[in-house]
Amino acid sequence: MSAVEEHVTEDVNADLGFGAVVARESRRRLLNRDGSFNVHRDGLRFWESLSAYHYFLTMSWTKFLGWIIGAYIIVNAIFAAVYVLLGSAALHGGKHDFASAFFFSIHTLATIGYGNVSPVTFAANVVVAVESLVGLIGFAIVYGFVFARFARPTACIRFSEKAVIAPYKDGRAFMFRIVNQRESQIVNLEATVLLSRRKKGGVTRVDREFVPLKLERESVVFFPLAWTIVHPVDAESPLKHWTAEDLMDCDAEFLILLNGFDETFSQTVHTRSSYAASEVVWGARFRSMFNPPEEDGTITVDIRKLHEIEQVPIPAG
Amino acid sequence: MSAVEEHVTEDVNADLGFGAVVARESRRRLLNRDGSFNVHRDGLRFWESLSAYHYFLTMSWTKFLGWIIGAYIIVNAIFAAVYVLLGSAALHGGKHDFASAFFFSIHTLATIGYGNVSPVTFAANVVVAVESLVGLIGFAIVYGFVFARFARPTACIRFSEKAVIAPYKDGRAFMFRIVNQRESQIVNLEATVLLSRRKKGGVTRVDREFVPLKLERESVVFFPLAWTIVHPVDAESPLKHWTAEDLMDCDAEFLILLNGFDETFSQTVHTRSSYAASEVVWGARFRSMFNPPEEDGTITVDIRKLHEIEQVPIPAG
Amino acid sequence: MSAVEEHVTEDVNADLGFGAVVARESRRRLLNRDGSFNVHRDGLRFWESLSAYHYFLTMSWTKFLGWIIGAYIIVNAIFAAVYVLLGSAALHGGKHDFASAFFFSIHTLATIGYGNVSPVTFAANVVVAVESLVGLIGFAIVYGFVFARFARPTACIRFSEKAVIAPYKDGRAFMFRIVNQRESQIVNLEATVLLSRRKKGGVTRVDREFVPLKLERESVVFFPLAWTIVHPVDAESPLKHWTAEDLMDCDAEFLILLNGFDETFSQTVHTRSSYAASEVVWGARFRSMFNPPEEDGTITVDIRKLHEIEQVPIPAG
Amino acid sequence: MSAVEEHVTEDVNADLGFGAVVARESRRRLLNRDGSFNVHRDGLRFWESLSAYHYFLTMSWTKFLGWIIGAYIIVNAIFAAVYVLLGSAALHGGKHDFASAFFFSIHTLATIGYGNVSPVTFAANVVVAVESLVGLIGFAIVYGFVFARFARPTACIRFSEKAVIAPYKDGRAFMFRIVNQRESQIVNLEATVLLSRRKKGGVTRVDREFVPLKLERESVVFFPLAWTIVHPVDAESPLKHWTAEDLMDCDAEFLILLNGFDETFSQTVHTRSSYAASEVVWGARFRSMFNPPEEDGTITVDIRKLHEIEQVPIPAG
Repeated sequence: MSAVEEHVTEDVNADLGFGAVVARESRRRLLNRDGSFNVHRDGLRFWESLSAYHYFLTMSWTKFLGWIIGAYIIVNAIFAAVYVLLGSAALHGGKHDFASAFFFSIHTLATIGYGNVSPVTFAANVVVAVESLVGLIGFAIVYGFVFARFARPTACIRFSEKAVIAPYKDGRAFMFRIVNQRESQIVNLEATVLLSRRKKGGVTRVDREFVPLKLERESVVFFPLAWTIVHPVDAESPLKHWTAEDLMDCDAEFLILLNGFDETFSQTVHTRSSYAASEVVWGARFRSMFNPPEEDGTITVDIRKLHEIEQVPIPAG
Repeated sequence: MSAVEEHVTEDVNADLGFGAVVARESRRRLLNRDGSFNVHRDGLRFWESLSAYHYFLTMSWTKFLGWIIGAYIIVNAIFAAVYVLLGSAALHGGKHDFASAFFFSIHTLATIGYGNVSPVTFAANVVVAVESLVGLIGFAIVYGFVFARFARPTACIRFSEKAVIAPYKDGRAFMFRIVNQRESQIVNLEATVLLSRRKKGGVTRVDREFVPLKLERESVVFFPLAWTIVHPVDAESPLKHWTAEDLMDCDAEFLILLNGFDETFSQTVHTRSSYAASEVVWGARFRSMFNPPEEDGTITVDIRKLHEIEQVPIPAG
Repeated sequence: MSAVEEHVTEDVNADLGFGAVVARESRRRLLNRDGSFNVHRDGLRFWESLSAYHYFLTMSWTKFLGWIIGAYIIVNAIFAAVYVLLGSAALHGGKHDFASAFFFSIHTLATIGYGNVSPVTFAANVVVAVESLVGLIGFAIVYGFVFARFARPTACIRFSEKAVIAPYKDGRAFMFRIVNQRESQIVNLEATVLLSRRKKGGVTRVDREFVPLKLERESVVFFPLAWTIVHPVDAESPLKHWTAEDLMDCDAEFLILLNGFDETFSQTVHTRSSYAASEVVWGARFRSMFNPPEEDGTITVDIRKLHEIEQVPIPAG
Repeated sequence: MSAVEEHVTEDVNADLGFGAVVARESRRRLLNRDGSFNVHRDGLRFWESLSAYHYFLTMSWTKFLGWIIGAYIIVNAIFAAVYVLLGSAALHGGKHDFASAFFFSIHTLATIGYGNVSPVTFAANVVVAVESLVGLIGFAIVYGFVFARFARPTACIRFSEKAVIAPYKDGRAFMFRIVNQRESQIVNLEATVLLSRRKKGGVTRVDREFVPLKLERESVVFFPLAWTIVHPVDAESPLKHWTAEDLMDCDAEFLILLNGFDETFSQTVHTRSSYAASEVVWGARFRSMFNPPEEDGTITVDIRKLHEIEQVPIPAG
């Protein structure tokens, strides 16, 4: 392999931000279907890796709700224990047990303050003061996270399960299909596709290269329904003369990057995915997703048909 | 039709993100005046299509307020029913009817807690604890939506009701006019106009093509008042030699895309609209929107004149 | 005037988004020193022109605080009046006068609920329910505005009071100076300068043209301190061979546009200003704003010197 | 020095937004390792320089929490003092000392309102009304800051402690290494590197120039792990024929600018840093950060190895 080739490869490799070792050693796909990377970092100190902000921002709403409920119960339990420890004279009203103290704590933290139970001693009042501050700060943090989660745009683009090698003009093309699952409009959507594969003429099994694939169309102005992204296998294509077996032999992986402007959030959004060689169907095409036009002329698309493909013969590469 | 023509058409078609079927079959306009698309998706599962976030973010403030009031009443009614079910010993003070329980619930959910009514039994206290948490989370969600609605920029650009084919230099031009309805400044406003029409020489009635129209000016640095967007009908224009009848015959539709930077929100904003053939007045021009300069030299524009046009003869195309 | 000239002028004119009438008729400056435009819109319906959101977002904090305090007092006074109207049996505890009702309303709206006064009748409880909802929604709106104001970036760039025509290399240049008044860093700051003037050879006094001025440097990567923006008066400059009198005679106005990326807000920010002919000092240069380096080598700049200029002879244009 | 050279230098100098004085006089590094500038402004009026917003937005969370706790205690203490001044009749319930008044103030400000202590006199009720408003506004400001802090993206990119001059192809290169410390993905990361140095052939010791360094690769699409940024010392490099001593003699400083798109925040983020001559190791290279691939093929990187370098011989420049 000449120095020039080496250089080109290094460039494209670096383009992905993967180190050479990752590219050469990995026996797993680099990018998972859900867009996450198959790499991990360690060596961060505990607090650095905790990354609480990112964690609470990206978890599911159900889990987020679970955390709030859990924290609410624990904080009240702690304060209840403190009130119990302060003795039976600390609070006026109610029974002097943990349950009463717990409910008093809730009246305080939630700032209800019925007054059927109230703090009497200096110590109890100090604990109430602390609890009110904990409540203020805690609610601010909960509100802050809810807001941050609301303000955070997430593209909800669904990819077809399989990519296909389909007939295209006089030859063939690599194609996959995406739909917008949301009501919100995405405009100026751009696609980038890179082919990651072991080099065909590579010295060892683990030499990998990353090749950008030229697309018939790199962006769409609107994305109201579906978009079939097409890489024509022409004279310059790295897939020229390739067979289905070649794809498998080379551990080929198609890395997909999408970015567009989400109108609901008025922000730029990114999505990633990939197709491994085993997810590419050789000699197939996508069935139309459009329903027959309705009587009033309205066009509808059936998103359940996103993954539907049918076998077709394709010309030799 | 040659392969080259086919290719060009497909390209522009795809440029809009509409599938070929939409472009060929639709007998309705593609883009409504308010910028929404005349297409629909189905096949999404119930929860996916629910899209609550998008719904609450984009509904009118009146409707949003209605939802809050409705939810507030329903939640309190549910808790009131629970307190009633817990029996007359559950709450101390007040009458032991639904109304009292409902008002007690409000004192609790809103965290007022007068204490004229207060929970006595363990069960009642547990319900109070649950209600306080429901209140915390519910308020966080309401606050979150209010913030998200406040933080979401929406361009408020009004389009002239009609577009015109007006005299322009030695020939004529397609023109429409827009004004900024808001106090906020929009800067770097860009316009894109596409002509969608059945092909003049098309094989069937339903062959559609999308042609970008060259504009005299594609963007303005400032947009303090009004902007007349002009497509000169020159030698390269797809409207060359066309008549008003040709427009109607071909189901022509002018698709408009605007994007700019809103200074109040400090964010990029997008607006869409379209003019159908029946909304284009042949042989007319826009009247000036400017009032006579005031004594102190201040310039004013009368937005009520946005739609005013007057008939004028135009040279042959 | 030939058709070509006409066209060029129209273009630049439109570039500012000012209509021809504004450009030709205005006897006042187009852009005020604070960046606002000297134009006004009317014809908007009351609600459209109200633009409450923009109003509350851009007013001063003092005024915003005044609005909150005023609204708080008025809302409580209204509810107090209602409680008084409900009769002396409506509330238990306190005196049955307006003052007591007003304070009870505050305990309710602010969700304090001491309980020393509490609602007794069904009607009073209904009003309490309404007030609690008004409080919830009102607080959400106040919080929303505070957040939106906090999240809204505003570049705080101060312009030198005067622009100068200063010596520059072998000739001269138009210059003005800006400083960043904030601790926050602005990066990738770009400047655009347009000269607006009555045409020298224009047929009537009111023919105006807008000419972009070429800058020695159109952007800076960082803007930690000060930046002197320089338009060299070279062979292509529209200011070539001009005198101070020419500037005044032509009602020249230099329109300034700045945009950059604010690191504190992580958002793009825009600033506008302008220099009228009377604000340009002919034959002067800016004094250095830098203090002598401190003992430890730290560089400091004295922002009070921003406006300091000194007379210098300049070569003929 | 010719006029041409002078011009070029001025240009690049201005490119950084540093004035000529800064560039010529400073004996300290311009940009600190943490990205802050070694320059200071004075002459701002007190309120302008206060910059409270920027201060509360960028301080650490610990400090921010300290401010909230401090403000909470002070505000309650002030109101407590006022209640005490109003005399023993002002409040009903509790002892009539400062502690009781302080706790009553907390019950009021936090909107708990147990009612065990309650305001009696008109004056006390007015103070309660004021306190409730102070609470509303104060909480809105605290919430606002928490949201603004949450919504503010901060890239957390760690730079290697040292940069190196390492072997590269047939020659050598200036290199440094960065890692993403966060879970969040940064995409489209771009790097800019400028060399600041006293001119080799300069007339005086203090003539400084700023030279952009050409990078082997100016951006990466993804940044999941680490990126080594490389400036090859080729024929055009300003480092050609330089030795380690030359670097020190010229007070060389490498200024680094990074910007990318943070997926968690969906916003553009910027980071700055610099390497002084003393932080560049001559004849060294970075050790691999990758751990041996795990059994399942997962790739891991050990961030503790970020700074690890090893001595290697390098060819002459």
